[in-house]
Amino acid sequence: MTSRCALLTGFQPYAGRGINPAYEVMRALDGKRIAGVSIVGRTLPVSYAALRERIAGLLDEWDPIVVLSLGLWPGEPAIRLERLAANLADFEIADNDGRILADELLTPDGAVSLAATLPLRKIEHAMLAEGIPARLSGTAGGFLCNACLYHFLHAAASRPVPPPSGFLHLPYLPAQVAELMAETRREGRLELHQRADLASMDLGLAVRAAEIALAISLRAVLRG
Amino acid sequence: MTSRCALLTGFQPYAGRGINPAYEVMRALDGKRIAGVSIVGRTLPVSYAALRERIAGLLDEWDPIVVLSLGLWPGEPAIRLERLAANLADFEIADNDGRILADELLTPDGAVSLAATLPLRKIEHAMLAEGIPARLSGTAGGFLCNACLYHFLHAAASRPVPPPSGFLHLPYLPAQVAELMAETRREGRLELHQRADLASMDLGLAVRAAEIALAISLRAVLRG
Amino acid sequence: MTSRCALLTGFQPYAGRGINPAYEVMRALDGKRIAGVSIVGRTLPVSYAALRERIAGLLDEWDPIVVLSLGLWPGEPAIRLERLAANLADFEIADNDGRILADELLTPDGAVSLAATLPLRKIEHAMLAEGIPARLSGTAGGFLCNACLYHFLHAAASRPVPPPSGFLHLPYLPAQVAELMAETRREGRLELHQRADLASMDLGLAVRAAEIALAISLRAVLRG
Amino acid sequence: MTSRCALLTGFQPYAGRGINPAYEVMRALDGKRIAGVSIVGRTLPVSYAALRERIAGLLDEWDPIVVLSLGLWPGEPAIRLERLAANLADFEIADNDGRILADELLTPDGAVSLAATLPLRKIEHAMLAEGIPARLSGTAGGFLCNACLYHFLHAAASRPVPPPSGFLHLPYLPAQVAELMAETRREGRLELHQRADLASMDLGLAVRAAEIALAISLRAVLRG
Repeated sequence: MTSRCALLTGFQPYAGRGINPAYEVMRALDGKRIAGVSIVGRTLPVSYAALRERIAGLLDEWDPIVVLSLGLWPGEPAIRLERLAANLADFEIADNDGRILADELLTPDGAVSLAATLPLRKIEHAMLAEGIPARLSGTAGGFLCNACLYHFLHAAASRPVPPPSGFLHLPYLPAQVAELMAETRREGRLELHQRADLASMDLGLAVRAAEIALAISLRAVLRG
Repeated sequence: MTSRCALLTGFQPYAGRGINPAYEVMRALDGKRIAGVSIVGRTLPVSYAALRERIAGLLDEWDPIVVLSLGLWPGEPAIRLERLAANLADFEIADNDGRILADELLTPDGAVSLAATLPLRKIEHAMLAEGIPARLSGTAGGFLCNACLYHFLHAAASRPVPPPSGFLHLPYLPAQVAELMAETRREGRLELHQRADLASMDLGLAVRAAEIALAISLRAVLRG
Repeated sequence: MTSRCALLTGFQPYAGRGINPAYEVMRALDGKRIAGVSIVGRTLPVSYAALRERIAGLLDEWDPIVVLSLGLWPGEPAIRLERLAANLADFEIADNDGRILADELLTPDGAVSLAATLPLRKIEHAMLAEGIPARLSGTAGGFLCNACLYHFLHAAASRPVPPPSGFLHLPYLPAQVAELMAETRREGRLELHQRADLASMDLGLAVRAAEIALAISLRAVLRG
Repeated sequence: MTSRCALLTGFQPYAGRGINPAYEVMRALDGKRIAGVSIVGRTLPVSYAALRERIAGLLDEWDPIVVLSLGLWPGEPAIRLERLAANLADFEIADNDGRILADELLTPDGAVSLAATLPLRKIEHAMLAEGIPARLSGTAGGFLCNACLYHFLHAAASRPVPPPSGFLHLPYLPAQVAELMAETRREGRLELHQRADLASMDLGLAVRAAEIALAISLRAVLRG
């Protein structure tokens, strides 16, 4: 079993942003070993049309013992550990194909929600103990991050040994907020009066958060 | 003295918004009597070029015993009672003439800041006692609301009996937020993840806040 | 069928707050007729121990054709129309019995989530069209509001004709925020620097929101 | 002139918090050389009674060519470059002597406000260009951070060559927010529904921000 791996996914940039912390964190950990297990980092497309098949393909190709997916939640000040994926596609903005879905089911015959199968509370405690702002969250939204978690949990459930799977939403990187602030001033088209939604987290801290999530999840599987 | 009045100003709509709560509140109180004094409601232009002269003209025309000006602070959840006006024009967005000023003085030889001369703490207490969210604020921003207060205080100081003058920033009206939310969904161009900046206050409550401010200010002058 | 009613529930005050907008809105509509149907307003206890039985009792007693429940979401600037109830009790604060539950299931053998069965999108559109800030929400939290919706949906599902059921989270009333601001200043124990979480909504607007939700839900049932 | 220094101050912890990022950043740069000038880092007491004298003493002792002071603004997501210090002491919380001042002047005969004398816009641009969230701010609040800037500017003005002086407000450190989140959950006494005020900034980034402010300010003085 030493050849088994953990799959770590990160989304491409989207919504006109040049970078995505999810992609950066995934790249930082790709090829590393955590708890003696190889981390396979892969990019997910911000495309409703392509996402489900890509996820099925990754599970088939790598047969991972743990799956951790990463995405961006603009404005969030802490790591969000998503408890639930809803059977819902309801986009506030277009995906990278220009597509906006409203109030649709991801899987017509699927459950209303699926619960993430990583040891989330234990991961949260470990993050907080290391000084990383983190919290459990009751919604992964209605965009592709939620769809990603739903598809992984749904596909995992039909495998011989379903790999524990979960999703972390990451804050902006500081440089993204700096660019947003510079752009806002340059273009004079938006007031940032209250300055909410400008929280960020250093890349190093976000990478460490993902490492903690993978380490705890892998140890639980290996011990199990 | 029965012919003396209180001047209440409200800005026009700006930034592409169809309405401005400051204008609506001003209109609701124009012509009313408060503490036995007539309220003269007048509109101010969202124009850097025209604002100062308009203010000087209103003081000359009406010779008010109190001046209260109103503006919008998008996203604010409470009435802001501005303590200070800064000698600064620094715009995040264009005024209605399409003009953006950056880091300029309003009055080259003027003081760094001027302090509002209404009994702000007493007004705040009265608002809170009536159940109206309110707070004293240390900055009126860098746009025309701040300029309005600075120009009024500056011009008032050179009159024989300077009328006590102040400024209230008002939250959005609920209908403005509803329109913003509907538009955001319709156009799919902005994520409202954290939903900050969507606070609002009912028109009736904002009108009552302005009445309280006028009543307390007028009684202080009449008693004085 | 003229004897059938709609059940409208509102929670008691909790967390040391003297009032709860949910209770006030429920009281304002109790006994009214909407779409020709009587509104039966009832109070729910902020008690994990008592909630489920109370809900079962109300369904048995009234056999409503629609159920709408109301609760408070502190700091929320808009009406939240809850899409989902999670099979989860995870409290940030104690209920009125002093009890805090962490990461527990509401119903060991229940589904991960249940979906609200009111026409939420139609209700949201009607609220926004009337100028009431409103949005669909993907999580009702982990406290008794979520438990309320879960228990109603679960119990409703086993009735001969399951009544469409849903939940609205309401913002603070303005007077609650005013009291919070006065108290904070009085006691000097908390900084309100950013002043988030101080949004509020007028009682009249919240009552109108509940009326809209009931009217649209009832018409859908009566037409069905 | 090679013996001249820049003075960098950081406040002690306060309000029951165990650490203060202002102190940490000050300590990280104490003794360093920036633009060829020695940085003298010193602690300021969170004491209204002691602050003014301490500031006068530091100016006399070190005769600095630039003064930069640092403080914490809980919940702020970006570096705040304070434009103005107001002649005001109005505390939301007690200082470390247990003292709360309300609506008092810092200096009875002083100006309403004093303007910071560092090249703030240039510093902001440099921070944003390096990916550090930063903005100019119109108010330093009413607590000791504001008093610190006012006292420094006031005292500096009476020196033969007034040293350019300014103030940066820093966000929480991530570990402070993590501790706040853990504590909130442990004690169950506060809902963190909206999760505003939980923004933070990595120590390394905050240190770099202070370095940038010092470097640009010192170069402006040395070139002058």
